[in-house]
Amino acid sequence: MFDQISIIGCGLIGSSIFKSLKKAGSVKKIITYDNDKSVNEVIEKNNLSDEIFNNVSDAVKNSDLVIIATPISSFEKVLNSIKDNLKAGSILTDTCSVKIGVSKIFEKMNLKNSVCIPGHPVAGIENSGPEAGFADLFKNRWTILTPNKKIDGQAIKKLSSFWESMGSKVKIMTDEDHDKILTFTSHLPHVIAYNIVKTSMSNDASVKDDIIKYSAGGLRDFTRIAASDPVMWRDIFIDNSALIIQAIEKFIKNLDEFKKAISEKDGKKLVEIFEKSKDFRKSVIKAGQDTDKPDFGRK
Amino acid sequence: MFDQISIIGCGLIGSSIFKSLKKAGSVKKIITYDNDKSVNEVIEKNNLSDEIFNNVSDAVKNSDLVIIATPISSFEKVLNSIKDNLKAGSILTDTCSVKIGVSKIFEKMNLKNSVCIPGHPVAGIENSGPEAGFADLFKNRWTILTPNKKIDGQAIKKLSSFWESMGSKVKIMTDEDHDKILTFTSHLPHVIAYNIVKTSMSNDASVKDDIIKYSAGGLRDFTRIAASDPVMWRDIFIDNSALIIQAIEKFIKNLDEFKKAISEKDGKKLVEIFEKSKDFRKSVIKAGQDTDKPDFGRK
Repeated sequence: MFDQISIIGCGLIGSSIFKSLKKAGSVKKIITYDNDKSVNEVIEKNNLSDEIFNNVSDAVKNSDLVIIATPISSFEKVLNSIKDNLKAGSILTDTCSVKIGVSKIFEKMNLKNSVCIPGHPVAGIENSGPEAGFADLFKNRWTILTPNKKIDGQAIKKLSSFWESMGSKVKIMTDEDHDKILTFTSHLPHVIAYNIVKTSMSNDASVKDDIIKYSAGGLRDFTRIAASDPVMWRDIFIDNSALIIQAIEKFIKNLDEFKKAISEKDGKKLVEIFEKSKDFRKSVIKAGQDTDKPDFGRK
Repeated sequence: MFDQISIIGCGLIGSSIFKSLKKAGSVKKIITYDNDKSVNEVIEKNNLSDEIFNNVSDAVKNSDLVIIATPISSFEKVLNSIKDNLKAGSILTDTCSVKIGVSKIFEKMNLKNSVCIPGHPVAGIENSGPEAGFADLFKNRWTILTPNKKIDGQAIKKLSSFWESMGSKVKIMTDEDHDKILTFTSHLPHVIAYNIVKTSMSNDASVKDDIIKYSAGGLRDFTRIAASDPVMWRDIFIDNSALIIQAIEKFIKNLDEFKKAISEKDGKKLVEIFEKSKDFRKSVIKAGQDTDKPDFGRK
């Protein structure tokens, strides 16, 4: 598939790619670069790289595939540093949760040596950093690629096989579709999770302790989602701000209606909302995105 | 402890109490009543009762403890049916997630034979009905009792021991404190989960299918919470409407601020919100309400 790949940014995703490829044995040499010294110490200690580079431009030389797995705010800086060292015919991709923004950066850079294909493995956990990564993170999860129309089909096929070698299912779509879907499946849920934790925290200190103590009634699950990597989410919210703001407005409009039904004690309307939610849940389970095994608090 | 108890309403909670007591062997005879014929068929088939009654007033005769585990909208009807048959000195309790409303009903009924102690096991899963129940539902979970000041300490102690025999930890507090805390730990999170599912569902049919397909990025976890029992939640929202509406308003105010930070691309403010959420998450884990083991989709 690829003889040599470079992973730029070794957090949860970067380190999981390393572990996953090593498990599959599908790539000969994996080079890593991270601008954080403490991350490199973890990488070295845990053997999460075949060769650690301290200079990002050197790290991409001779690599057939370069994966940028940093928060999006670092993209331009990284690209400016590596652009003159990319191998002719190499593929350049990324892993972040917004794709229109990445397409624009790739277009602006107009790299001559590399084929640029934005990508996003829809997989993640609330923990971040290289120690959180694990080989099966991408298994049975979707990876979405959003190449523009000019991209060579062979390169897309090659990158798809790469993700498939790690157990991922691959879907090709436009960056517009990706961002529209992810706004609802991931970005809005994270805004809401952060906001509900913020709202609970804003109670008096005395009540706050009890809220933590009795959080198993629903709040607990939101705190998990709201524990994800701050810098990554800052970048996603800022980059995809237009769609996220639209979604928030839609959410508030619905919440106002919901509030009205509660305040008018309109039981019929409430049950109607709940029954529809149950149906939606059934579709999620049917699509293999969750199990119907009940969750009663992980131990 | 108690020689005979009656469980009125045999859904998730009622059937879990039966299984849990049988496992502990702490009660001689357990009588059940449910007004739904299909529920009684399941109870009979699965041996979830020592004696099934078809008449609620007969079901409580000679019982030392009567547990009402129905949605709150059925309480008055149940109490009117059983009040003349309650054993002298018996204890009457319930399991629902609002306590001011239950206190008021108990006060209004002014029962002479029974000591009324409102209660709430803070435990639950998204599945409902007698088949969903299991013996360990209450293990290491909190049960909150909200007796008024006139209640005899011995009766409170007896009811506490009863819940403890099923592995539960017991906390005594006022009904006002209970409802205030549960509004944030459970009721508001459920409102929000229902509302985010509603908001996602309101997209065009074409996008909706993709939203289901890629729901693993956060939305999935909300759909689980939004799959809980509709009638139970209708009753909770209506009964605790004043506090829930206040909480929704607080939530919207915070969400408006959050939206402003996103729209102004105020990265500093966003990271500040996220870091605080991470701290709150740590407190939840420290309080034993969740594990720090990452969740990457249950299998």
